[in-house]
Amino acid sequence: MSGSTFGKNIKITTWGESHGEALGVVIDGFPAGMELCGEDIQKFLDRRKPGTSSATTSRKEDDKVEILSGVFEGKTTGTPISLLVRNTNQHSGDYSDIASYYRPGHADYTFDEKYGFRDYRGGGRSSGRETIGRVAAGAICMKLLSEMGVDVMAYTKSIGPIEADMAKFERNSIYESPSAMPDREADKKAMDYIMKCREEQDSVGGVIECRINGVPAGIGDPVFDKLDAALSLAVMSVGAVKAIEIGDGVLVSGRKGSENNDSFAIDDSTGKVVKKTNHAGGILGGISDGSEIVLRAHVKPTPSIARSQSTVNKDNENIEINIHGRHDPVVVPRAVVVVEAMCAITVLDQMISNMSSRSDYIKQFYLQK
Amino acid sequence: MSGSTFGKNIKITTWGESHGEALGVVIDGFPAGMELCGEDIQKFLDRRKPGTSSATTSRKEDDKVEILSGVFEGKTTGTPISLLVRNTNQHSGDYSDIASYYRPGHADYTFDEKYGFRDYRGGGRSSGRETIGRVAAGAICMKLLSEMGVDVMAYTKSIGPIEADMAKFERNSIYESPSAMPDREADKKAMDYIMKCREEQDSVGGVIECRINGVPAGIGDPVFDKLDAALSLAVMSVGAVKAIEIGDGVLVSGRKGSENNDSFAIDDSTGKVVKKTNHAGGILGGISDGSEIVLRAHVKPTPSIARSQSTVNKDNENIEINIHGRHDPVVVPRAVVVVEAMCAITVLDQMISNMSSRSDYIKQFYLQK
Amino acid sequence: MSGSTFGKNIKITTWGESHGEALGVVIDGFPAGMELCGEDIQKFLDRRKPGTSSATTSRKEDDKVEILSGVFEGKTTGTPISLLVRNTNQHSGDYSDIASYYRPGHADYTFDEKYGFRDYRGGGRSSGRETIGRVAAGAICMKLLSEMGVDVMAYTKSIGPIEADMAKFERNSIYESPSAMPDREADKKAMDYIMKCREEQDSVGGVIECRINGVPAGIGDPVFDKLDAALSLAVMSVGAVKAIEIGDGVLVSGRKGSENNDSFAIDDSTGKVVKKTNHAGGILGGISDGSEIVLRAHVKPTPSIARSQSTVNKDNENIEINIHGRHDPVVVPRAVVVVEAMCAITVLDQMISNMSSRSDYIKQFYLQK
Amino acid sequence: MSGSTFGKNIKITTWGESHGEALGVVIDGFPAGMELCGEDIQKFLDRRKPGTSSATTSRKEDDKVEILSGVFEGKTTGTPISLLVRNTNQHSGDYSDIASYYRPGHADYTFDEKYGFRDYRGGGRSSGRETIGRVAAGAICMKLLSEMGVDVMAYTKSIGPIEADMAKFERNSIYESPSAMPDREADKKAMDYIMKCREEQDSVGGVIECRINGVPAGIGDPVFDKLDAALSLAVMSVGAVKAIEIGDGVLVSGRKGSENNDSFAIDDSTGKVVKKTNHAGGILGGISDGSEIVLRAHVKPTPSIARSQSTVNKDNENIEINIHGRHDPVVVPRAVVVVEAMCAITVLDQMISNMSSRSDYIKQFYLQK
Repeated sequence: MSGSTFGKNIKITTWGESHGEALGVVIDGFPAGMELCGEDIQKFLDRRKPGTSSATTSRKEDDKVEILSGVFEGKTTGTPISLLVRNTNQHSGDYSDIASYYRPGHADYTFDEKYGFRDYRGGGRSSGRETIGRVAAGAICMKLLSEMGVDVMAYTKSIGPIEADMAKFERNSIYESPSAMPDREADKKAMDYIMKCREEQDSVGGVIECRINGVPAGIGDPVFDKLDAALSLAVMSVGAVKAIEIGDGVLVSGRKGSENNDSFAIDDSTGKVVKKTNHAGGILGGISDGSEIVLRAHVKPTPSIARSQSTVNKDNENIEINIHGRHDPVVVPRAVVVVEAMCAITVLDQMISNMSSRSDYIKQFYLQK
Repeated sequence: MSGSTFGKNIKITTWGESHGEALGVVIDGFPAGMELCGEDIQKFLDRRKPGTSSATTSRKEDDKVEILSGVFEGKTTGTPISLLVRNTNQHSGDYSDIASYYRPGHADYTFDEKYGFRDYRGGGRSSGRETIGRVAAGAICMKLLSEMGVDVMAYTKSIGPIEADMAKFERNSIYESPSAMPDREADKKAMDYIMKCREEQDSVGGVIECRINGVPAGIGDPVFDKLDAALSLAVMSVGAVKAIEIGDGVLVSGRKGSENNDSFAIDDSTGKVVKKTNHAGGILGGISDGSEIVLRAHVKPTPSIARSQSTVNKDNENIEINIHGRHDPVVVPRAVVVVEAMCAITVLDQMISNMSSRSDYIKQFYLQK
Repeated sequence: MSGSTFGKNIKITTWGESHGEALGVVIDGFPAGMELCGEDIQKFLDRRKPGTSSATTSRKEDDKVEILSGVFEGKTTGTPISLLVRNTNQHSGDYSDIASYYRPGHADYTFDEKYGFRDYRGGGRSSGRETIGRVAAGAICMKLLSEMGVDVMAYTKSIGPIEADMAKFERNSIYESPSAMPDREADKKAMDYIMKCREEQDSVGGVIECRINGVPAGIGDPVFDKLDAALSLAVMSVGAVKAIEIGDGVLVSGRKGSENNDSFAIDDSTGKVVKKTNHAGGILGGISDGSEIVLRAHVKPTPSIARSQSTVNKDNENIEINIHGRHDPVVVPRAVVVVEAMCAITVLDQMISNMSSRSDYIKQFYLQK
Repeated sequence: MSGSTFGKNIKITTWGESHGEALGVVIDGFPAGMELCGEDIQKFLDRRKPGTSSATTSRKEDDKVEILSGVFEGKTTGTPISLLVRNTNQHSGDYSDIASYYRPGHADYTFDEKYGFRDYRGGGRSSGRETIGRVAAGAICMKLLSEMGVDVMAYTKSIGPIEADMAKFERNSIYESPSAMPDREADKKAMDYIMKCREEQDSVGGVIECRINGVPAGIGDPVFDKLDAALSLAVMSVGAVKAIEIGDGVLVSGRKGSENNDSFAIDDSTGKVVKKTNHAGGILGGISDGSEIVLRAHVKPTPSIARSQSTVNKDNENIEINIHGRHDPVVVPRAVVVVEAMCAITVLDQMISNMSSRSDYIKQFYLQK
């Protein structure tokens, strides 16, 4: 069964291995007529590009995107958009040992069990480089969402024990600070913490938060395709994510109803229905309620660490290994734009589904034409 | 876009409203030849049946399942299995007020925004009664899994601040205690806590944990259909769930790699590859690693509480409401079997997908025949 | 893999066997707010009901539809519509022999090979009664299409060698004549031919034509989900259909381009683009061109015939059989409404897909709201 | 809604325009461990390559395939196989006029109506060059089918009035004769006919037949995913196909049951169940019966003809046009391998689905491991 396709109306299919010729994505079902150029995509890819700070792998990749189809005279044509990024800085030699043993925390063992063998170079298909296709597709969805007033913003909420203080929130800090935190002071502390762990031949985890504004009430399908369920699938499918929270998330299980319910009220200025609080994170019964959608992803520390670890090899022997190579001591900052991308694709997809939720919508659409 | 169908190989479609004629499910793609009778399903439905303890709604429903198709001479035929449960104890009058206002924490407002109106009787389609279809389908999947040595076991991990002590684990306690906790002492405390909150006209949340044993290594598709992503979709689609954790879940974001990695080792007795620890919860790179799969769902407190709450009505006025009716002060105990069902369906579905993961498997299958 | 679900936006799932308790369909994704009552569906079911003329089986079934969910206060709610028809006139005894041998032209052998055994009563799942669910779902789609000015009309084009003369076309004749021909004279001849074949213990085939008017240009997705490809899947999935033609169909293979091309022209009265001819049957490149969509299905003669036939039994012996029971000497007239239903579902589904074909459509939709 | 993805277990997604940078396909879900090299694919692409005879366009394209992912150390890895073919011989200038008017028989008008504009260079996405991706994917599926003893063979059955005589069948003639007919004498006549029509500035249609041997009984899902319905979708989605026949196809509508039924018998030599005739074309009730599967596609004459035609331009004026450029006078010979590819993909996909049709199969699979 295929597992590299995501989405219902807009279907994205990523392909490519860490150390193959290239990686890419095909975006099928994207609507026609939106202006699109390479730069619209490149600016998102640059946010996940390695080698930009001491917190990332020293592998240098330009990650320049080529648009191979689906755009004509500067606009999307409604047909599949094929995007390709060439791998240029493969050091396959770095991974030659890996062929013979299973790295703890990696998918080496499970790939071998599933497929009988694996492309062991840099994690092959389970490499973080697979997310290039996601980010490229997300960039395109983000552009259309943005034209509709929907803003998808992810950032690093915490790195190990260091948490961003939302009172010091500064949006540009997300894009400028190496940790992708929206709080420049916390960013400094986080980077110190990362460097210290790296010196200890260790790695660190963290939390990514995503806030989505401008989604009208009514998006999401009840039952299995709930908006929060779809977002959970989308974000849990990003490697290294081990928990997902919607709104107040894990806190709700310890609460009473009177603490957790969000009261509705009429907004005095607009006359519209609003919620006084947002414990629910903008989703009720799987459907957006018009308030901010809030989601958090808990990301595990990079499993590749330089210090000695015990594992087994393919001859079924217990061995000790030291993983060398160019690894990020933390994947959180580079994963921020991946989470953003997955949320954007999901929200746009569900907004399209919603266009046919009422028979009157369909009738109006066709009677207008 | 439809949202009431779940699964890829085995597709389940639930239908029905809380106060309609009936609820049900169609299970399409279930393999032929498995023995199946009503009792196989009924025993699971009885675990979610209301009215069995003081912690549940006083609505009395027999929830007797009828098998309408897909079973012949006591065995599944490979064609759709249609199951139906009649609603018998509707008190629609209890809900007449609800038509005019939006209950905090419920999907009343979002349904109205999406569809233009709603079946306001008892939550209609967003009622917990929708899960009857899920549990019935899960029961059928569980039977086949069980015949293959896969055990899916969910239980109440905590109710508000009361947590089950796994040192006192007793499996039967899950099925016999009103809280569905595997620790009889914690169950008593939890029930006291629930009763106290109910007296205060309040409700409580909790945590459901699911442990799946016997799944071989290799199940799950990398990238978007990761086993953990599929489980997250499955369980987050259960109403009232606001967070999902795989393995150590939210704890991983605060850890270092050296703390979080699970070392591989050769098991002395079997000679097989095992993990010394299981922070990962049995899934690496989205694929099962042969160890126990562990998942937790955080469930919010029942939004329907008797104490006074502020909200708005359909005339856009701020009002105060007191919700009457027969509500569970906690949904966790009855949701345990729903989480179990969703996990079972997901695991079986992915095990089927995995049958074609290698070309040799396919060749063997057809050359044997 | 499941095979009982059809459609992308509106998903219909049929279930039920010829001689089981009941048959039905779940329609998921149907938009909210359309008025719907049982009679809207019943009138279509009555067109496929047996026992209405000498050309059909003598099995008497009321085929009364029950709406179990998805309709509230007379309108669709946007949630799954579950429809059920009880089997009341099963003569399972008629089929007792069939358990032991394979009827020529039926699916007895292939079901056994696929599933290891089969519900042998009246064809089980491969019975024509399965189409009850299709017709019921089609009736609902037809109602919405009709409100948008789309007319889907199928009729019997020919029975054996007797062909309807379109110069004598009368729409009511389709619904009133036993052959479902739009030409009352041809109907009489066709009925005579059917009766003669029946006397000879034989059965006859025929052609069903479907004409769809009012579909705007632009419906259908290029490449795999072409409108003509989707219609072919839909109609070829009706049992007994062995060939599908779009527009001039099989004639095109013998033609030259100059004969087969349809010239475009400006319609003098409306100023719009029209085609001077319609060899293409209203579809170019898989997309509707605004002219009439024309499709034909070739239906084989009923395989159940009273005269002696040679076949094999489950003990692998060559035997002679005489099939008794209540069989239609021709399935064409009753299949007309099934073809109509499948075309209606397909067209509505693709019209919904088309709502998101342009980014401007999506922006307008959400900026209007 | 996306329309460029085909298949359920093995999903293929084609992308690319006639005159864009490149065309390609992503094959997701193909099983691991099959040996695969470029030549396995190239030999199929060469069968559809233009410029090989006077019956094809003079556009010269090498159509060299690059494997960008999914193959490691000469074997498929189970992850997406990305294939790319660069366009090298675009003469976009040839198409500059086309931007301003609608060619009869082409998708120019319908693309404009659907998407608001179109890539007018060489048909853009609706070009026959899109089928490069299909053929490449088909080649890969064919290799696995071949290893399982399944043979998929398509050929030109007729060109205009010239029909291949199956008594003179020679398999190599399919691959060696310019018409792709299996009868070398008919091929010569067909080529003369084509040349004569070309001189008359005209084009011709024809019939492609596909015969599939070695498929075991039991493949195909009853109801909507019938094997014949799936094949119809697959083949009707090939541009220019206007009719599909299974087995005796259009002939069945004029027959009586006694003529059309295929009697079962025990094969004396093998002791197995066989059919004495094969009017059904190897499929009963949507499921393969173990005999040869036979399908025919009726292909219309190339709509691009040099002689003068009347049409309209984008200013809504009636005009006369003469289409220049490098067009095939007949698409049938080059479409043969496309039909073969689509049938191969469909059959392999359904064979994979069938692996889980019985609960015993699943249990055996997992208990063996």
